[in-house]
Amino acid sequence: MDLLALQEPIVQAPLSGGVSTPALAAAVSQAGGLGFLASGYKAPAGVKDDLRQLRSLTAEPYGLNIFVQQSVPAPAAALSAYASALRPEAQRYQVDLGEPRFDDDNFAEKVELAVGERVPVVSFTFGCPAADVVARLHEAGCDVWVTVTNPSEAVQAQQSGVDALVVQGFEAGGHRGYFTDGPDADDLGLLVAIRLIAGSVGLPLVAAGGVADGQSVAAVLCAGAVAAQVGSAFMLAPEAATSAPHRAALAAPGSTRLTRAFSGRQARGIVNRFMREHGDDAPAAYPQVHHLTTPIRAAARQAGDPDALNLWAGQAHTLAQAAPAGEIVRSLGAQARVAAQQASRRLGPQR
Amino acid sequence: MDLLALQEPIVQAPLSGGVSTPALAAAVSQAGGLGFLASGYKAPAGVKDDLRQLRSLTAEPYGLNIFVQQSVPAPAAALSAYASALRPEAQRYQVDLGEPRFDDDNFAEKVELAVGERVPVVSFTFGCPAADVVARLHEAGCDVWVTVTNPSEAVQAQQSGVDALVVQGFEAGGHRGYFTDGPDADDLGLLVAIRLIAGSVGLPLVAAGGVADGQSVAAVLCAGAVAAQVGSAFMLAPEAATSAPHRAALAAPGSTRLTRAFSGRQARGIVNRFMREHGDDAPAAYPQVHHLTTPIRAAARQAGDPDALNLWAGQAHTLAQAAPAGEIVRSLGAQARVAAQQASRRLGPQR
Repeated sequence: MDLLALQEPIVQAPLSGGVSTPALAAAVSQAGGLGFLASGYKAPAGVKDDLRQLRSLTAEPYGLNIFVQQSVPAPAAALSAYASALRPEAQRYQVDLGEPRFDDDNFAEKVELAVGERVPVVSFTFGCPAADVVARLHEAGCDVWVTVTNPSEAVQAQQSGVDALVVQGFEAGGHRGYFTDGPDADDLGLLVAIRLIAGSVGLPLVAAGGVADGQSVAAVLCAGAVAAQVGSAFMLAPEAATSAPHRAALAAPGSTRLTRAFSGRQARGIVNRFMREHGDDAPAAYPQVHHLTTPIRAAARQAGDPDALNLWAGQAHTLAQAAPAGEIVRSLGAQARVAAQQASRRLGPQR
Repeated sequence: MDLLALQEPIVQAPLSGGVSTPALAAAVSQAGGLGFLASGYKAPAGVKDDLRQLRSLTAEPYGLNIFVQQSVPAPAAALSAYASALRPEAQRYQVDLGEPRFDDDNFAEKVELAVGERVPVVSFTFGCPAADVVARLHEAGCDVWVTVTNPSEAVQAQQSGVDALVVQGFEAGGHRGYFTDGPDADDLGLLVAIRLIAGSVGLPLVAAGGVADGQSVAAVLCAGAVAAQVGSAFMLAPEAATSAPHRAALAAPGSTRLTRAFSGRQARGIVNRFMREHGDDAPAAYPQVHHLTTPIRAAARQAGDPDALNLWAGQAHTLAQAAPAGEIVRSLGAQARVAAQQASRRLGPQR
């Protein structure tokens, strides 16, 4: 699909982990943006249902996000130490800890589902699919996007034959898309990431991270992106399945931080007790730690308790509006047009 | 001075610590931007000489940056432990460690100098000057700017009566301008910082951090800044006093990180051996640690050895061009005009 043909240069972030709904994706696509479904943490059958439901709501293009989870040896001692540190939390929320297992989130099945359903855009996060996976999706008519955070990942993705890159700045809420999460991972700000990646590869770039209003949309287009990917700004929409405590936290002032406390992978969320108390202990072990903490997070969510919940949010979360998603798309587009024209006037004509 | 009257919306970052020169500031102002002198780490007499020299080179407006160093109780045990950890470095470079003392960088004298010399723009970093200092500068006809990193600092600066804010994103090279450096300091990306601060105060904003080409200049104008403050992009200019090993490091690919290893305050530099080996041990004690490491850094610089040198650089340092500063100003302005017009076209007319 031609990103330049989008009526509004706005892509909805997939919002894995409970926020994504067919209604949200449909509303964004209907308003001239590009809606996305998340397949992460979901069984393939549920994803198939979501796709069917989405297509019953709109005939416009949409996307599906798939995790590329790489099996790295889990640091056994660190994992079991972390499990011990979490036992009082499990008692507090009257649950057992989950099993800290590796799984690949049904990668192959989800790719086959995307092929079978001829999903218009399939985006990948946490790594780069192999060239044969990209080719198989291309044969089915799917466009393939990969989330990258720095120029070397961008070059690797280009070599796999993908069609566009989602450039994720460190401002973004939720998981960092690094191909490898480790002490040497780079945390580039969004503007810098776009400029450095635009100088390294020739692919269309979708800019993600802290973009929550139209001024920022115009900004990333100036930097060379063809569209902005917007997450937090859609999380208060009635179509989103954001939990009540998460909505309350998003709307209030509150600092965000990167943490491995909830999932074993760096992710940005609003600072809460669980992050403060466990952030320093959590090992880089994804998705093992995700499974370990799942029962605690579920219990906290059910209790409406924001203290032990992963409150994923980008740095600009307080800019989110509690408005229908289609209205958000249109209002971001309108603000962006004004901002770009004002900047053009400020700069004056070409000399 | 009216920032909107600048021919190019480009402010040269002060570049304290050895890079700033009157020739650099003059070239930027002559080309239609706003050049800046650094007073940080310099004796007032030397700053006075720089001001005279600058005025002999240009009749255009310029700025002077002054540090606002707050005396916080130094963590004595942590400081002496850090000094012990640095002793092998001192031996290696055949110097004695410096005395880890507090000083205020001659704040009062430098303010009086700015008043006496009627400096057009006086910017402050590391804190907010008291309202009476701002008033005194205003009486002398000086505009007053303060560097801020988040909305609460911006509100505090506005209450002191300042004329404009330099909004520093975490992408910026050199020291973070937090009023207080500590574990709770926020590290907002530049775009987010501008958007959140624009929503909190009504002052003109100058956007700093990772802006090293015209596309990024256009981007920060879309976000609502009236000008961009550019640092790394000027550091390879012949007018800059950047040391040879620093120039080589800026031009090569290389990750940057925040570290307290060199100065005791978070600052962004290109990762080198000293940062890797000492970054985790360095206490938050500025400028004590700065003085402690000064002899090591000076010896390394003299030896052309980049391993123990503070290689301050923003995240976009590889975009820096080795061109005369005036040419850089004009080329950034020209790129910005093209970028803003392309974004406007992409977005289409207002509906």
